[in-house]
Amino acid sequence: MMSIPLRDFRSVRLLAAVFAFCILFISSMFAQTDTSAPRSNASEKIIIDTDIGTDIDDAFAVGLALQSPELKILGISTAWGDTHLRARLLTRFLKETGHSDIPIAMGIAKERPGKPEILSQAPYAERVPADQKYPNAVDFLLEQIRLHPSEITLIAIGPETNLGAAIDRDAATFRKLKRIVLMGGSVYRGYGQFNYGKTHGPDPEWNILCDIQAAQRVFASGVPLYVMPLDSTQIKLQELERAEIFKAGTPLTDALLVLYELWSHGATQTPTLFDAVAVAYAMHPELCPTQPMRLRVDDQAYTRVESGPANAQVCLRSNSDQFLEFFLPRTVSSGVMAGANRTLKTVNVARIAERTPTR
Amino acid sequence: MMSIPLRDFRSVRLLAAVFAFCILFISSMFAQTDTSAPRSNASEKIIIDTDIGTDIDDAFAVGLALQSPELKILGISTAWGDTHLRARLLTRFLKETGHSDIPIAMGIAKERPGKPEILSQAPYAERVPADQKYPNAVDFLLEQIRLHPSEITLIAIGPETNLGAAIDRDAATFRKLKRIVLMGGSVYRGYGQFNYGKTHGPDPEWNILCDIQAAQRVFASGVPLYVMPLDSTQIKLQELERAEIFKAGTPLTDALLVLYELWSHGATQTPTLFDAVAVAYAMHPELCPTQPMRLRVDDQAYTRVESGPANAQVCLRSNSDQFLEFFLPRTVSSGVMAGANRTLKTVNVARIAERTPTR
Amino acid sequence: MMSIPLRDFRSVRLLAAVFAFCILFISSMFAQTDTSAPRSNASEKIIIDTDIGTDIDDAFAVGLALQSPELKILGISTAWGDTHLRARLLTRFLKETGHSDIPIAMGIAKERPGKPEILSQAPYAERVPADQKYPNAVDFLLEQIRLHPSEITLIAIGPETNLGAAIDRDAATFRKLKRIVLMGGSVYRGYGQFNYGKTHGPDPEWNILCDIQAAQRVFASGVPLYVMPLDSTQIKLQELERAEIFKAGTPLTDALLVLYELWSHGATQTPTLFDAVAVAYAMHPELCPTQPMRLRVDDQAYTRVESGPANAQVCLRSNSDQFLEFFLPRTVSSGVMAGANRTLKTVNVARIAERTPTR
Amino acid sequence: MMSIPLRDFRSVRLLAAVFAFCILFISSMFAQTDTSAPRSNASEKIIIDTDIGTDIDDAFAVGLALQSPELKILGISTAWGDTHLRARLLTRFLKETGHSDIPIAMGIAKERPGKPEILSQAPYAERVPADQKYPNAVDFLLEQIRLHPSEITLIAIGPETNLGAAIDRDAATFRKLKRIVLMGGSVYRGYGQFNYGKTHGPDPEWNILCDIQAAQRVFASGVPLYVMPLDSTQIKLQELERAEIFKAGTPLTDALLVLYELWSHGATQTPTLFDAVAVAYAMHPELCPTQPMRLRVDDQAYTRVESGPANAQVCLRSNSDQFLEFFLPRTVSSGVMAGANRTLKTVNVARIAERTPTR
Repeated sequence: MMSIPLRDFRSVRLLAAVFAFCILFISSMFAQTDTSAPRSNASEKIIIDTDIGTDIDDAFAVGLALQSPELKILGISTAWGDTHLRARLLTRFLKETGHSDIPIAMGIAKERPGKPEILSQAPYAERVPADQKYPNAVDFLLEQIRLHPSEITLIAIGPETNLGAAIDRDAATFRKLKRIVLMGGSVYRGYGQFNYGKTHGPDPEWNILCDIQAAQRVFASGVPLYVMPLDSTQIKLQELERAEIFKAGTPLTDALLVLYELWSHGATQTPTLFDAVAVAYAMHPELCPTQPMRLRVDDQAYTRVESGPANAQVCLRSNSDQFLEFFLPRTVSSGVMAGANRTLKTVNVARIAERTPTR
Repeated sequence: MMSIPLRDFRSVRLLAAVFAFCILFISSMFAQTDTSAPRSNASEKIIIDTDIGTDIDDAFAVGLALQSPELKILGISTAWGDTHLRARLLTRFLKETGHSDIPIAMGIAKERPGKPEILSQAPYAERVPADQKYPNAVDFLLEQIRLHPSEITLIAIGPETNLGAAIDRDAATFRKLKRIVLMGGSVYRGYGQFNYGKTHGPDPEWNILCDIQAAQRVFASGVPLYVMPLDSTQIKLQELERAEIFKAGTPLTDALLVLYELWSHGATQTPTLFDAVAVAYAMHPELCPTQPMRLRVDDQAYTRVESGPANAQVCLRSNSDQFLEFFLPRTVSSGVMAGANRTLKTVNVARIAERTPTR
Repeated sequence: MMSIPLRDFRSVRLLAAVFAFCILFISSMFAQTDTSAPRSNASEKIIIDTDIGTDIDDAFAVGLALQSPELKILGISTAWGDTHLRARLLTRFLKETGHSDIPIAMGIAKERPGKPEILSQAPYAERVPADQKYPNAVDFLLEQIRLHPSEITLIAIGPETNLGAAIDRDAATFRKLKRIVLMGGSVYRGYGQFNYGKTHGPDPEWNILCDIQAAQRVFASGVPLYVMPLDSTQIKLQELERAEIFKAGTPLTDALLVLYELWSHGATQTPTLFDAVAVAYAMHPELCPTQPMRLRVDDQAYTRVESGPANAQVCLRSNSDQFLEFFLPRTVSSGVMAGANRTLKTVNVARIAERTPTR
Repeated sequence: MMSIPLRDFRSVRLLAAVFAFCILFISSMFAQTDTSAPRSNASEKIIIDTDIGTDIDDAFAVGLALQSPELKILGISTAWGDTHLRARLLTRFLKETGHSDIPIAMGIAKERPGKPEILSQAPYAERVPADQKYPNAVDFLLEQIRLHPSEITLIAIGPETNLGAAIDRDAATFRKLKRIVLMGGSVYRGYGQFNYGKTHGPDPEWNILCDIQAAQRVFASGVPLYVMPLDSTQIKLQELERAEIFKAGTPLTDALLVLYELWSHGATQTPTLFDAVAVAYAMHPELCPTQPMRLRVDDQAYTRVESGPANAQVCLRSNSDQFLEFFLPRTVSSGVMAGANRTLKTVNVARIAERTPTR
């Protein structure tokens, strides 16, 4: 028999860490319960505005939403550049995954002068007929808000051009959004290789850089704003996680695999799951804890911290393990989800992982 | 101007998570300070007992110790199988990294009947002359304990054969270890692909399975015991982290690269950093928070939880981001560390990460 | 002005090599012409008998046949193990690539006792309803021979169980095959890492090992036999070639990508294109030049060279560059091929390759 | 018993291919004999002029020369950009591989204005003291020619600045080179992904582009010139070949591994073995059969074919299998080679390859 010596528990810091750990452990147990038994009654109405087709994270983000019974997707609109080609990409993506019932709207085809947008995933989209017609995204957004005032969460994961135009058109209606969850900005951490470690300071973030004026309008719109900046969204999809997804062989993971290969040009590239963090937040805010801040979008596309009343809830740090623990089984789940009556068969990650050790 | 609505902060769980996050954030700030300015006075005397040469994590663990001014390495002993070849591997590894002053001892060459140990990294070791002589590991361990009673942390990252033999030889001296930090066991989580997610139940863990009786003696020895089981040590070294290490071009990272290629047979394999967690814990216990438990090693090599007074502090969950945030810059640091007067030049991970975004 | 000294052209060997090169160069120019302008009149009627679903090369072989206007595919039959599941795999594969008009037949579900066949690509097949019905492969084969006596090339790229059964049933009809092109056997070279270099001697080759008696019957059947053994079929599909295929984004390459990921478990594995060599040979025999030999299948599944009259044309060496130069653009071609009126739009590999050099 | 039908051997082309194959097969048997039993008497005196440290192929080329008893290396000189840092790289490379006896000379530090050369492998070189002194490359080259008139093969695998300067200094001595084997130029094929397949037309090739005037002088020098252009040197070192090399664990392969990781930034990149083809040619010209041509270096760095008497022997096509069959075992050989008395223990590739098949 032995007693445990306390000589290693000297510092307040350590006790604090242990305490924090306990709380996290408890909350993660809750999280697990939630994931496996989602409250179908508590459906969150969402619209996703996305520049799917350029970087690869939009596909993972939309895929996550499709797999999530917590969310009722009223529609998906396309943003930035060739929004018609992006809409065609969505048409195929939704069809292959059994979600052709979700409306698709086409956003404003804006580009930066002299910097044409190249869609890495264009070949996927081009199998949809070029004469396919889509409703206007700004019209669609405003209509939906009018139909469901104060009920819609807008998940904005592309440049905010469509949002800016909707504010210009009808700011009063726009303000009847329940909230905006936005992937964008860079508070203390810029683009980097990891979700952790030291960093050079903030960078102009892509979604904001593309249309600075639109972003400024959104931050000043008065709609409750939840910001997922570079600080907390650079979670990587590395080799082991990609393997779990790409070998799953579901309609969704097959589509993600094909899009990934187009994006990576058939080589090994590591996706950063920026946009998927925003979608996850809309369901499970504990995956990216926020704090109130006052942010201003300056004319160089930086999101500057200012004194004064908060205008956003901002997530400054996430935890890759926790995020992937949610994201991975959800994405590979083979659950059948059609329309409002979605049932989700939870995949047993444990079985996936049942491998003999390498040594 | 807007005020932040509280309507999303409904649940106690969420508040708990936010609170936990804040504490973690504060403690991680302390951790960063510590890492960059280690207290050279507070050197921890350690001996490492390792089966380096089979799996690859031992090399990363020993490498981490070599880079850590918090640790004063009294010696490294080899465990299990061809302990002479393992000692030759260490001879080259320490020479190439400028640490030939660290004593190497050779442990008991035990194997499981009919299951010969194959050293994946044998070609690295074989460049050291086959007639090299090494002192006996059990003698070495007991001598060092007598020289430094109650001061030595024994980091046991191989099968515990040498420890069992030392207890048999002189249990009273063995009990004058300050503590044992042991990679071994499996409480609730068995071998798996990830450090997170659901799991099949516990497995017989390798270090304990190899020499069950030795492990049983260690768990009953009365020495303060800190256990890092499979539950918390399956942190992966994936493509991005490997790239940071292998392109660093320091003597240590070059040696790790060569050993990795031998282990992976030139293919892409993902190391699990089991043993490195034990070394990190010896310096920064907040990286793997422990709790008191009573564990019994049964005859099938399971580490069973029992009621009764605790006989170990056990870490059941770690955080990959936090661990790698410590491990990675430490490993790639080009700091010159010779003898007692080690100075560590911290590598700026931010500069490493200064890349243009992929989109 | 300078004259070219001849002092380096000393040996007969060198002159021979230069001469050989010139001839090869000329013939390869012809080959290129052929590839881009296939004679649609000269259609070769083929039936493929395949164990698709276990190793990955069958999928690449069938895919190559689908893309080849030189071939008129009368049907594809499945061999070995779960032939129904293999037929379902083909059903989806043909549907996704626009070839649902090609008949599928289900072979004999034989397995080696105690060695159940595992289909790595089962999840792909399982999306086809389990109650799908298929005609019997032996019936189908004999019927087709009767319909097209002396016109059919049977491309046998699985264990030869179905062939053996057809011989047992009606040897006279079977002999009315025009020829059999068979992937199987190992004359001087066994399984290895490369298509070149020294080798341990021959190995029992899989297709023959599975059903030795069936193979013996085929080699003694009297049908003109063209054998592609391990000696010449271990052409690898490495990273650059995989990238070209998987980023092409055609219906065929998307299907191949999904099947590859299932086979490789989401990791990096290098396919060996065994079976694709047999399909290529049926169109372009210069890609695997044969010589007459007398081969006997012994009871340990070796293909022994014997003296006596030749019973097979055997290809003992191929050239990876030449094979891939044919295989790669053919596979990634986006040409539309429906029924008899196939038109093939040749892909411009040069455009694919237009990259800036890495230095 | 069956007779072999000739009905498939219809075309002249096919017969030509079969004939070519037979000759190649015979010549390759000779080649194999050569490789395993090199004539030590027939030593070729060589000097290598290299821009090692930028692209990775120079390291593989120099490594191949070090492993080759057919070659007597009089010295290695560095070309282009930071020639001092390149010389330091060579100092470490030769030391680690046991070849410190080979003289190193430092070339002219020329760069293109505004285009500073970046050495990907600088960290490897920087461990050699910055004050290391090296003789002048132009002096060294001319001295060696005077010592060994008409005996030296100059293998030029960097921009030809040093050669141009030597011609300017003393054209008469320079002409006493036995020959120049030069990696450079692009006759019909430009930079591409593969060694085969269709191509866009020729490109300005790097070594010539860097110093066009020097190249023009070399092509007009009157020294017998053997040119290995982009047409025949784009042989790739893909995953399987890299694995064979990097897991070999010899001093040379360890050094190549470390240099590769610096070059690839720790990611997966595919080297193109441009320069290694030139070194191989100097020993085994059958690996890259040449033909006489008249080439002119124009002012845009193209190597234009002109009518008139030939000024070079040019290799327009090589065979990856044949090249790698020579290159791979030679590179991984663990033979001890010191000074003039090199003995080479041939590695058995067959044993390396003894793997169970994947299916």
